[in-house]
Amino acid sequence: MADSRIPVAVLGATGAVGQTFIRLLNGHPWFRVAEVAASERSAGKSYRDAATTWLEGIIPNEVAGLTVLPCDTGSVKSLLVFSALDAAAAQDVEPAFAKAGRFVLSNAKNFRMEPDVPLVIPEVNASHLGLIETQRKNRGWSGAVVTNANCAATCAAVALAPLHEAFGVRQVFAATMQAVSGAGYPGVPSLDILGNVIPYIGGEESKIESEMQKMLGIFSGNAIVPAPFVVSSHANRVAVENGHTVVMSIGFEQKPTVEQAIAAVRAWRGAEEVRGLPSAPAVPLQYFDEPNRPQPRRDAMIGKGMTTSVGRIREDSILHIKLVAMSHNTIRGAAGGSILNAEVLVSRGIVPRPGGSNA
Amino acid sequence: MADSRIPVAVLGATGAVGQTFIRLLNGHPWFRVAEVAASERSAGKSYRDAATTWLEGIIPNEVAGLTVLPCDTGSVKSLLVFSALDAAAAQDVEPAFAKAGRFVLSNAKNFRMEPDVPLVIPEVNASHLGLIETQRKNRGWSGAVVTNANCAATCAAVALAPLHEAFGVRQVFAATMQAVSGAGYPGVPSLDILGNVIPYIGGEESKIESEMQKMLGIFSGNAIVPAPFVVSSHANRVAVENGHTVVMSIGFEQKPTVEQAIAAVRAWRGAEEVRGLPSAPAVPLQYFDEPNRPQPRRDAMIGKGMTTSVGRIREDSILHIKLVAMSHNTIRGAAGGSILNAEVLVSRGIVPRPGGSNA
Amino acid sequence: MADSRIPVAVLGATGAVGQTFIRLLNGHPWFRVAEVAASERSAGKSYRDAATTWLEGIIPNEVAGLTVLPCDTGSVKSLLVFSALDAAAAQDVEPAFAKAGRFVLSNAKNFRMEPDVPLVIPEVNASHLGLIETQRKNRGWSGAVVTNANCAATCAAVALAPLHEAFGVRQVFAATMQAVSGAGYPGVPSLDILGNVIPYIGGEESKIESEMQKMLGIFSGNAIVPAPFVVSSHANRVAVENGHTVVMSIGFEQKPTVEQAIAAVRAWRGAEEVRGLPSAPAVPLQYFDEPNRPQPRRDAMIGKGMTTSVGRIREDSILHIKLVAMSHNTIRGAAGGSILNAEVLVSRGIVPRPGGSNA
Amino acid sequence: MADSRIPVAVLGATGAVGQTFIRLLNGHPWFRVAEVAASERSAGKSYRDAATTWLEGIIPNEVAGLTVLPCDTGSVKSLLVFSALDAAAAQDVEPAFAKAGRFVLSNAKNFRMEPDVPLVIPEVNASHLGLIETQRKNRGWSGAVVTNANCAATCAAVALAPLHEAFGVRQVFAATMQAVSGAGYPGVPSLDILGNVIPYIGGEESKIESEMQKMLGIFSGNAIVPAPFVVSSHANRVAVENGHTVVMSIGFEQKPTVEQAIAAVRAWRGAEEVRGLPSAPAVPLQYFDEPNRPQPRRDAMIGKGMTTSVGRIREDSILHIKLVAMSHNTIRGAAGGSILNAEVLVSRGIVPRPGGSNA
Repeated sequence: MADSRIPVAVLGATGAVGQTFIRLLNGHPWFRVAEVAASERSAGKSYRDAATTWLEGIIPNEVAGLTVLPCDTGSVKSLLVFSALDAAAAQDVEPAFAKAGRFVLSNAKNFRMEPDVPLVIPEVNASHLGLIETQRKNRGWSGAVVTNANCAATCAAVALAPLHEAFGVRQVFAATMQAVSGAGYPGVPSLDILGNVIPYIGGEESKIESEMQKMLGIFSGNAIVPAPFVVSSHANRVAVENGHTVVMSIGFEQKPTVEQAIAAVRAWRGAEEVRGLPSAPAVPLQYFDEPNRPQPRRDAMIGKGMTTSVGRIREDSILHIKLVAMSHNTIRGAAGGSILNAEVLVSRGIVPRPGGSNA
Repeated sequence: MADSRIPVAVLGATGAVGQTFIRLLNGHPWFRVAEVAASERSAGKSYRDAATTWLEGIIPNEVAGLTVLPCDTGSVKSLLVFSALDAAAAQDVEPAFAKAGRFVLSNAKNFRMEPDVPLVIPEVNASHLGLIETQRKNRGWSGAVVTNANCAATCAAVALAPLHEAFGVRQVFAATMQAVSGAGYPGVPSLDILGNVIPYIGGEESKIESEMQKMLGIFSGNAIVPAPFVVSSHANRVAVENGHTVVMSIGFEQKPTVEQAIAAVRAWRGAEEVRGLPSAPAVPLQYFDEPNRPQPRRDAMIGKGMTTSVGRIREDSILHIKLVAMSHNTIRGAAGGSILNAEVLVSRGIVPRPGGSNA
Repeated sequence: MADSRIPVAVLGATGAVGQTFIRLLNGHPWFRVAEVAASERSAGKSYRDAATTWLEGIIPNEVAGLTVLPCDTGSVKSLLVFSALDAAAAQDVEPAFAKAGRFVLSNAKNFRMEPDVPLVIPEVNASHLGLIETQRKNRGWSGAVVTNANCAATCAAVALAPLHEAFGVRQVFAATMQAVSGAGYPGVPSLDILGNVIPYIGGEESKIESEMQKMLGIFSGNAIVPAPFVVSSHANRVAVENGHTVVMSIGFEQKPTVEQAIAAVRAWRGAEEVRGLPSAPAVPLQYFDEPNRPQPRRDAMIGKGMTTSVGRIREDSILHIKLVAMSHNTIRGAAGGSILNAEVLVSRGIVPRPGGSNA
Repeated sequence: MADSRIPVAVLGATGAVGQTFIRLLNGHPWFRVAEVAASERSAGKSYRDAATTWLEGIIPNEVAGLTVLPCDTGSVKSLLVFSALDAAAAQDVEPAFAKAGRFVLSNAKNFRMEPDVPLVIPEVNASHLGLIETQRKNRGWSGAVVTNANCAATCAAVALAPLHEAFGVRQVFAATMQAVSGAGYPGVPSLDILGNVIPYIGGEESKIESEMQKMLGIFSGNAIVPAPFVVSSHANRVAVENGHTVVMSIGFEQKPTVEQAIAAVRAWRGAEEVRGLPSAPAVPLQYFDEPNRPQPRRDAMIGKGMTTSVGRIREDSILHIKLVAMSHNTIRGAAGGSILNAEVLVSRGIVPRPGGSNA
């Protein structure tokens, strides 16, 4: 029986996020990893030999034997391309693929804030994919770049989505406690984090303070009108493997009661077109009544790592409401988010299925 | 040669804070542990046998052989009494000692917010010791209870002291990342904290939101006028052994520039009468230029655990200034703070030295 | 559609191992949790209210609403009973259930070394289930108690099985590095294990030194002839959540070459009757060529936590061969092992399926 | 008042071990850090600017302002040279200094096993310093290289010293659980060690299996006759910051009782000439009666990090005795060990004091 799944490529396949793509795509019902690409140093080797530090379990058999390709449009043929490239590599490679007609699902920071590049958490803002048309016009591309946000910003944005919708967010204090996996591999030295907190993550706070407004903004037909709120953030690294925690104090246009805020979070299901997609969690936003939840080690894998968890909605003594949000940074906040974005592209027919069916 | 040091007692001597008292008092130039007291279960045993889980290193020889006393004023004779009792025990025991003419240096939460009980970080508010007179009058006691604050509130209060003095603090967002030692022993189960964050510490946020205003308040002659600011806090437990980290966003009466705020922190030396006391750190407030400091594992022991460290003073996008503060929770924030308070009492002559000399 | 799965009970359902049973049985194709039982303190509450610290993710809906029963044969009706009771409770409760005709799959240490009680890792010694007949005769029971071993002994025994079969194990030095989940909840205090090693686990070494010989022994028809080897063990607790690591130096009756030892491990598939059972891993014993594997955090979940991993087979300078073994202590070494044992009982027809079919 | 302390140099001063030298030498009564040297990349900068990641607390003022020198004998003038160079750099640099008349106290592995190079833990084998004469004759050097051993071998050798003296060690199984600081900085990635064990440390086992016999060997007048025992080791990395733990099973020429073995450990004081030196701990070998000690986080700092701790001496079921040993790997097992070696050189007059006094 022929495998009718869509062949996809993973760029930057040997790094931490690249490996997460490969683990999440293992057994995916729509996609199969047909190509892996990485730096010149790895190209030509088998994936097994190139991914010298495989970070979790065993390399899936179908991928272990693939030959690592260089990251260029001549070598990589797939239409659908998951990019785990770092910023330096992404700068030229991602546009080259889009120009060559490919759909690039990017985790890099480079193009997120470009006015014509969608920054997408589909439950929150699937409509922003309308920007693809603007992007193609502006740039003369036949493909497109679709980005997902910084992992901490993603966590916070999902938690804020129903509250912004209902009450209009105006100010957000956000203090993060971020997992080491967010820094990739080798990433954070163990001497920096065992029994420790690092109250600084280079470049992180500016992303948290700018990306949410775009994601929670309104697609006007050909551009995004950002949501009108201000964010002040404190980004911290803690001794957690996976799962970013964000505590937030929030001011609104209309102050909700605690009960109204909880009800809004509980009721939220996100964009209807996303429900039922292979990577969409049954519950995109889980509210915990227990006063000490969510917790990253215990709750990051809810919804196979795609659910965002919220707890402790209560009164804030300066602004209106405070709460804690948590989600899996390398799944919901990176590779899993990209895969869900790709599923929406396929579901909408923007990326065609092989054979043309779109069931 | 006779030991001319002041004999002191430690109440609650077998628990985590009690042990910290004993370690810090080992070799103290003014004080020697003459008596240890604990619950009925331990009374009558040698300290060595009662302190079944000695948490760090080896029990000092002079203490190991002491017989554990019950916590009553008949059994414990010392004038100077360090209390590491929990709230349930402290409620009756501490006033009984004060009534009996003893000076109780308390870590319990019970009496901190009583209007006639000084809540003291001596570099910040040694003047509040003037309340002892009010307390004695009000209560007819010949001794006194002097308290130190919640460990996270202590860390934040020292960091805010020079800023409040110079610019008038009006609003504070404080998110804490607190060490497990703050919960005592056995305290936090390892399954709760390994690779994890617990976004909740029972009762902690209300202390953080109320105690600082008292500590930074003004002693009017017979009462404290609390500092007029509002605190909103998020208390989190992290996988750190020692050292509480607090990130804060601060609004002021007069907005300082970043440079002015740094200069105020750098210049601060605290109350002059505290300098040179045995437990007073050379630098009570250390400012770090490195963008990723202070860090608890690396910096909590600066000044033998008595220095508070501050870093990352920068603009806040909602209020005025944000920063990170960190100090050792069981030394500066508990036992060490009490010992320094006692040193001030001796230095002021409130607690007499044996033989009457006060050099 | 009626649920045709076998209703089962979990005794000790609120503790750490009990919760693991409930998580692993969630969605099990043959079994469904119909009853949960726990101490008097919990009985009568809903499971949701009784399991106050749910350790991972969210309580499955089907179980959350069950009323917790007391642990007696009048209250609990299921034929198949998974016991996560501690030793104190197991002593009377497990025999009572067996006497009442129930099949008790026990994790307690109490009866493991009884001559007529099977101590089973089915891939290794499914034949030992023949002891059930002896047990019933001896004790006049219509049910039976089937035990699984200490979690560290389980890990070591699976790793040794193919080597013992091929070369005859005679001596084993075993140093363990055990996860905190092995101590249950609340279990190990965080102050004991953060940044630390505890070179002692009460009662553990004697289990490791005696249980393996029984498991690797021969069922003679009505008794077990233990394997003739000596074990010397050092049990250590480390800062790992899940997965026990055991390094071993092994002496054999016939010294194998390193290549022969690796080949024996690679070739081993375990008892044929176990293959294909719902909880049986595709590969019961995984050999790693990478010099630094297996590692608990990375590899404990291979085979859904049921695979034992081995690496670093090399020459030993005193005995013959040394290696490292690792497996998941609460799945392979506890709840998952019991469930697989139950699957064998059903597969053999010892426990009947509802309706009598045995497909 | 002139500083009459001996000026010393630290080579490799910016790395983790180099920093430990600088911390330990801060306030040393005999030595002061007069020169710091490092790689070409750092040379010419101030030490403050070169040591970009200062790992603990604050850089001592006297050192922060020193200009980093290149590691050559023209630039570095001190007679006494502490080398924290890695193996690649040490290979040429250390002999060059010795040839130029300097005394090099080396932590590198390169020359430890050379027949004419002393490998010294002075409490154990100060007599081996007699090899300096052989070394100078053999090589025509006017200085010398004196090495200290691998940190895990050091821990084990001190624990074995009294037992070997009294009963003759013949076989040792040693499984180590080693701190991440042993790998330097950045060293072990946090994703490799959080919640994990790595059952492999490159090159470590062969050092543990060979260096102890040399250290516990006899100096015959011009050579070392190694102790006649065999070591089998398993080296593991665990999530501990400081302190290597080694569990050992030991066979002897004459089997001691447990009581005899404990008595030998308790009675041992090490070479008399070492007692009272500035870095010599009051108790070089601490025996713990508590069944769960020593533990690295709690006990590594006993004797300011220079005491080796032993516990759990008990019968072994294969060899004779088993136990657990632990010591601080970067103090006793590296920088502190070198400093103590230097103190012996000064005390013996091999390195002259300035002004010629040797009090």
